Amino acid sequence: MADAQVTAQERSTLSRIAADADVSTSTVSKVLNGRAGVSEATRARVEDLLHQHGYQRRGLRDPAALIELVFANFSTVWALEILRGVQTAAAARGLGVVVTESGDHRAPGPEWMDGVLQRNPIGVVLVLSGVTRSQRQQLQARGIPVVIVDPAGNPAPGVASVGSANWNGGLSATRHLLQLGHRRIGIIGGPVDMICSRARLAGYRSALEEAGVPVCEELILAGDFERDSGLRQAQRLLALPDPPTAIFACNDLMALGVYEAARLAGLTIPDDLSVIGYDDLNVAEWTGPPLTTVRQPLLEMGRQAAQMVLSLDETGPAPRVDLATDLIIRQSTGPAPS
Amino acid sequence: MADAQVTAQERSTLSRIAADADVSTSTVSKVLNGRAGVSEATRARVEDLLHQHGYQRRGLRDPAALIELVFANFSTVWALEILRGVQTAAAARGLGVVVTESGDHRAPGPEWMDGVLQRNPIGVVLVLSGVTRSQRQQLQARGIPVVIVDPAGNPAPGVASVGSANWNGGLSATRHLLQLGHRRIGIIGGPVDMICSRARLAGYRSALEEAGVPVCEELILAGDFERDSGLRQAQRLLALPDPPTAIFACNDLMALGVYEAARLAGLTIPDDLSVIGYDDLNVAEWTGPPLTTVRQPLLEMGRQAAQMVLSLDETGPAPRVDLATDLIIRQSTGPAPS
Repeated sequence: MADAQVTAQERSTLSRIAADADVSTSTVSKVLNGRAGVSEATRARVEDLLHQHGYQRRGLRDPAALIELVFANFSTVWALEILRGVQTAAAARGLGVVVTESGDHRAPGPEWMDGVLQRNPIGVVLVLSGVTRSQRQQLQARGIPVVIVDPAGNPAPGVASVGSANWNGGLSATRHLLQLGHRRIGIIGGPVDMICSRARLAGYRSALEEAGVPVCEELILAGDFERDSGLRQAQRLLALPDPPTAIFACNDLMALGVYEAARLAGLTIPDDLSVIGYDDLNVAEWTGPPLTTVRQPLLEMGRQAAQMVLSLDETGPAPRVDLATDLIIRQSTGPAPS
Repeated sequence: MADAQVTAQERSTLSRIAADADVSTSTVSKVLNGRAGVSEATRARVEDLLHQHGYQRRGLRDPAALIELVFANFSTVWALEILRGVQTAAAARGLGVVVTESGDHRAPGPEWMDGVLQRNPIGVVLVLSGVTRSQRQQLQARGIPVVIVDPAGNPAPGVASVGSANWNGGLSATRHLLQLGHRRIGIIGGPVDMICSRARLAGYRSALEEAGVPVCEELILAGDFERDSGLRQAQRLLALPDPPTAIFACNDLMALGVYEAARLAGLTIPDDLSVIGYDDLNVAEWTGPPLTTVRQPLLEMGRQAAQMVLSLDETGPAPRVDLATDLIIRQSTGPAPS
């Protein structure tokens, strides 16, 4: 039935590709539909030719009513919020969401790609993960669009993506502490090679400059977005001869590490030390005292990514959308000790 | 192509059903495959007849290489661990996992059922959710097996399920506190209508009896598995004339509430109060001090459920598997104050 939808022009393109690759058209069709029984070398040759001919259409079959969603990893509730957003948008259109944890930030593995070609989804959403060049070509050849949910701010060039406004988030967190009278504000940033870390730190610097407060390099440390680095770096900050009265941890997990450092040092939050996080994971609400933090609109980012992948015009430039963050004031920030 | 696989016998069953329902066989086939264009009343009539005739086969099509996974809700990292387990088992067989959050503990909604009939998965795994009678019949008629991941211990009769050993978990948590010399041990249980709550509480009672420590009813309170109920009930326990020296919170979220109650009362954990949780969510590790807890093997439960749904013999009795829990000793429990 689906074969009937192949136009005469496509048929001729596929015949030419089959001739160039020295294989049958049924082999080309196997490659397009991700079926078995084709050697790796032949598959690669056919994929190359499909790409050279700019072959792009919805495979030889109707797409399945599915969106593919890939997470590099599921380690925090972070992932659930995005999943919930994608699923809400998909369900509204009667689509199922196939979820995979790839375990690799660079790209999902070849088994995933095999599965995708067989499932033939309407689109692919990747979270904190890229795709390889060859995967992009394979998806493009079948007209399967890709959108990256990329709060880290480092999307591959030419790929549509959804992120959030990290610089603004860093700015508003720091402004909040300045308004409470803090002047010695420590910051524990994320990994220095991530754009989101740099953007949040730049927002911190801008807020201090705006308020005429000098930036002290000794108050600026980098973590790795894990709790333990928050603990370790907070201990370094608290051991300074003139320690900060407030610490901005660039994610909530590191803020939990700051809590632990304060507890071990016998300091009370917020009386002795104000702490602000970033993300608004649900643990932020559950800690004692509940954490003031910058909320990333993760659910909304997931929803936006699903909508984008369903409406993507692949002939135009790849869109990038950054959603706004919110400052959520709870009980971990208070006036600077006088 | 798939139609060719319909046997002569099935064809005659389907013709008879069509005749009884006073519709065409193509309408029966539409109902089986979840296609549109059939009125609700006709659909219900045909489903009833399919059930009466004991019609059961893989629909009229080959099943898709998919497992359907439904969560009543995604609210904690809990869900991620189970998802990870299901996905690992599915990926090992080249299957995709379609994930849905239904928002309802009783059963997923009718839109989900429509999607499932169209997608025609190999099997369905439900987490903390049931299915309606009519959904079960519809799935059975198509030979789509169902397994429930049910740590709450309340599976619908006749449905295969995977859980964990709640009574043993309650026993080992309480034994641990007894070994540390605690005699006044409070417990904040889960909702009283959940079997898992009753099993953990029974484990607590058994451990006390085993140690010859009297059970005091004033030390037994019920929560609702949310953090705030842990806070509230811990405050009641700590306000007793002879307050407990240890509290067993029957999940980790309520244990976080106990932490907050201790902080507000100026008590240090574990010097003034020992706290033990249940689940081993990753927040358990992140709190200060890190939480001693009973680990539920969520990942393993997900994996087991996926394997079960792929190998289920629907003619035999519905299997039930309970996996063992582990006591994870961290820093929130210590010797009873003398």
